[in-house]
Amino acid sequence: MTTLHNSQILLRSRPAGSPSLDNFALVETPVPPIAEGQVLRRTLYLSLDPYMRGRMSAGPSYAAPAEVGQVMVGGTVSQIMESRDPSFAPGDFVLGYDGWQSYGLSAGRLLRKVDPALGPVSYALGLLGMPGMTAYVALLDIGRPVAGETVVVSAASGAVGSVVGQIAKIKGCRVVGFAGRDDKCRYVTEEFGFEACINYKTQDLDAALLDACPNGIDVYYDNVAGGILEAVLRHINIGARIPLVGLISQYNAEKLPPGPNLGVLLTKRALIQGFLVGDHNDRYAAFLADVGRWLREGRLEYREDVVEGLADAPRAFLGLFEGKNFGKLLVKVNEPG
Amino acid sequence: MTTLHNSQILLRSRPAGSPSLDNFALVETPVPPIAEGQVLRRTLYLSLDPYMRGRMSAGPSYAAPAEVGQVMVGGTVSQIMESRDPSFAPGDFVLGYDGWQSYGLSAGRLLRKVDPALGPVSYALGLLGMPGMTAYVALLDIGRPVAGETVVVSAASGAVGSVVGQIAKIKGCRVVGFAGRDDKCRYVTEEFGFEACINYKTQDLDAALLDACPNGIDVYYDNVAGGILEAVLRHINIGARIPLVGLISQYNAEKLPPGPNLGVLLTKRALIQGFLVGDHNDRYAAFLADVGRWLREGRLEYREDVVEGLADAPRAFLGLFEGKNFGKLLVKVNEPG
Repeated sequence: MTTLHNSQILLRSRPAGSPSLDNFALVETPVPPIAEGQVLRRTLYLSLDPYMRGRMSAGPSYAAPAEVGQVMVGGTVSQIMESRDPSFAPGDFVLGYDGWQSYGLSAGRLLRKVDPALGPVSYALGLLGMPGMTAYVALLDIGRPVAGETVVVSAASGAVGSVVGQIAKIKGCRVVGFAGRDDKCRYVTEEFGFEACINYKTQDLDAALLDACPNGIDVYYDNVAGGILEAVLRHINIGARIPLVGLISQYNAEKLPPGPNLGVLLTKRALIQGFLVGDHNDRYAAFLADVGRWLREGRLEYREDVVEGLADAPRAFLGLFEGKNFGKLLVKVNEPG
Repeated sequence: MTTLHNSQILLRSRPAGSPSLDNFALVETPVPPIAEGQVLRRTLYLSLDPYMRGRMSAGPSYAAPAEVGQVMVGGTVSQIMESRDPSFAPGDFVLGYDGWQSYGLSAGRLLRKVDPALGPVSYALGLLGMPGMTAYVALLDIGRPVAGETVVVSAASGAVGSVVGQIAKIKGCRVVGFAGRDDKCRYVTEEFGFEACINYKTQDLDAALLDACPNGIDVYYDNVAGGILEAVLRHINIGARIPLVGLISQYNAEKLPPGPNLGVLLTKRALIQGFLVGDHNDRYAAFLADVGRWLREGRLEYREDVVEGLADAPRAFLGLFEGKNFGKLLVKVNEPG
C-alpha cells in the first residue's frame, strides 16, 4: 500500500481576542502504518462549531485546550478504510473526534458507529448529534416549554437554534427567532415554521419583541448572550426559564463585558441556567428516539452549510463569529470510498 | 370612651434615588368609631424591611406602590383592643399589614392570629414570619443544600440571612456569611455558628472567599446582588445554585447598574433563580412546623434590633440601606395592654 499523505491543520498560535488565519498552519504528514487494534479512516466531514474558540485559548474552560503545534480538535464523521479492531469493518461510517485532518488512525474505542439509515451521515454532527442533543435537552429540561407559551431562540438559523424552534413548535408553542440576515430570517419563518424572526442587526429589538411576542416571553433559549439577552429580559413573563447554552457574542472578547442587571430575575421569579450537553449522556437514548422519529415523520427541517476541502476550514471557522454560515457549518474533507 | 389619637407616618413624596426623612410626614388623626364587623387594635411592633423601598416608587414592581399622602405600608403585630368580629377577642395578638401607625381599624379578615406560645409575638414579623419563610423556602427549594456542601449567604446577620445560615448548618453544610461590620461578623460566627464571616467593606473578597471556602461554593443565597455576587461567581462549583432573593445594593439606584458577565453560569452549569415568598403559600405549613421545632429545640438563634417609638421609624428605615441595623429591624410602637 502506498503511503497516505495526511493533510492536517495545526493550531499554530493562540489568539488574543478574535482568531485569524495566522493562528492556523496546514501541514502534510505521512500516515504511520496501522497497528494491531487500530482503525484507519478517512474523514468525510469535519464539524466547525463556536465552542472551538474556547479550545484555542489556554485559560480555564469546561474542556482541555487544544495544544499549540497539534492538530486542531473537532468532531468528525469518517469512513473505515482498514480495521485491525473486530468491531469495525471497511466501509463503516463512524463518529469520532479526529479533528482537522484528512485521515484518522487510532484504537477504535472512542469511535461510535453511524447508521446511514437514520439520515445523511453528516447529520451525526448536527441534527442527530451534539448540536441536536444540545437543542433537545436544554429546551426540554431547562426551558420546559408548555403548549401555548412563547419560546424565543437566538442564532435561530443555526444547527442548534433551528432545532430548538422546531421542537418548541412540535410542543405547541409560539416560536420567535433571532438571526443576523434577512435571508436567514425568511428561511427561519418559511422553512422552519417560526411565527417570526427578528434581524438583530437591523431591527429595534424592543419594538420587534413587543410585536412578535404579544403575550411576553416564557422561554428564551440563549445561544449568544450580550445585547439580545438584555432585550429579552425586558419582555419576560413571570416564571420565565432561560437556558444559557452559548455565548457566541463574547467568545472573542479580550475582556468579558458586564452582563444584564439581574433585578428582573427577582421581579419575574425567572431562572437562568447554564447548560453543557456533555453532562447529559443519560438523555441520549430519548433524544435519538424522539428526534429520529420527528425526522422520519417529516416534522423537522435541517440545513447544512458545507465548505469544500480542508484547506478552507480556517476561513470558514472565522466566519462563524460573523454569522457568515447559514445552517450547520461542515467541511467536506474526502469523498466516501 | 375617649377618642384615640392615631400617630401615622405618611409617604409625603416619592424619592429619586436614596430616600430621605423629607419623604415622610408624621401626622395625628382621630381613630373613627368602631363599626359592626370591625376590629380595633393597637400596634405593638412595626416591621421595617428593604422591600419597602420599592413600594415608595411608582414604577412597576411585584407589588402595588404605596400612595403619596397615605400611611406607609408595612407588616405589624398588634393586640386587639375591641372587636365586633366574633373571630377575635380583646387581648388577642394578630399579624396584619396596618403600616406605620399606632392603631389599626378594619374588618378582621386580613388579620392572622399569633400564638404567643410559639415565641415572642414579634417573631411573627421575622423568624416565624415572612423573613423566616423567605429564608426557608428559597434555601431549600432553589438552593437545595446537600450535607457537606458550602453555602454562602449575604446580609448574614439580618433577619433572612441569619436564618438561611442556621438552616444550612442544620442540613450539614459549611456556612460562610457576608456582613458589613466586624461586630456583625463576630456575631454571625459566634452566635449563629457560621464557619466564617467576611466583612465585605474591609476585606478583599476573592482572598477571603478562597480562604473561607476551600472547596468552592455550592449555594449562594443572594440578598444583595452587586459586587458580592460578582465575587462569588468567581468561586462557584459546577452545578451551583443561586437563589436571588434581594437586591439591597441597588434598591436606591437611579439607574440600574450592569450585572455580572454570565459566562460562568455556562462553564459551571450553574443556576440563578429569582424568588418571591408570596408565590409559595403552599410551603407555609412545612415552614412553620420545621422552624417552630428547631426554635423549640434551641437550634435556631434569632436577633432583633428594636427601635423605640413610631416617630423614629423613618430614620431607622433609612439606616437599613447603610447596614445600620443589627438583626431584624422592628419599631416598638405601643406596649401591650
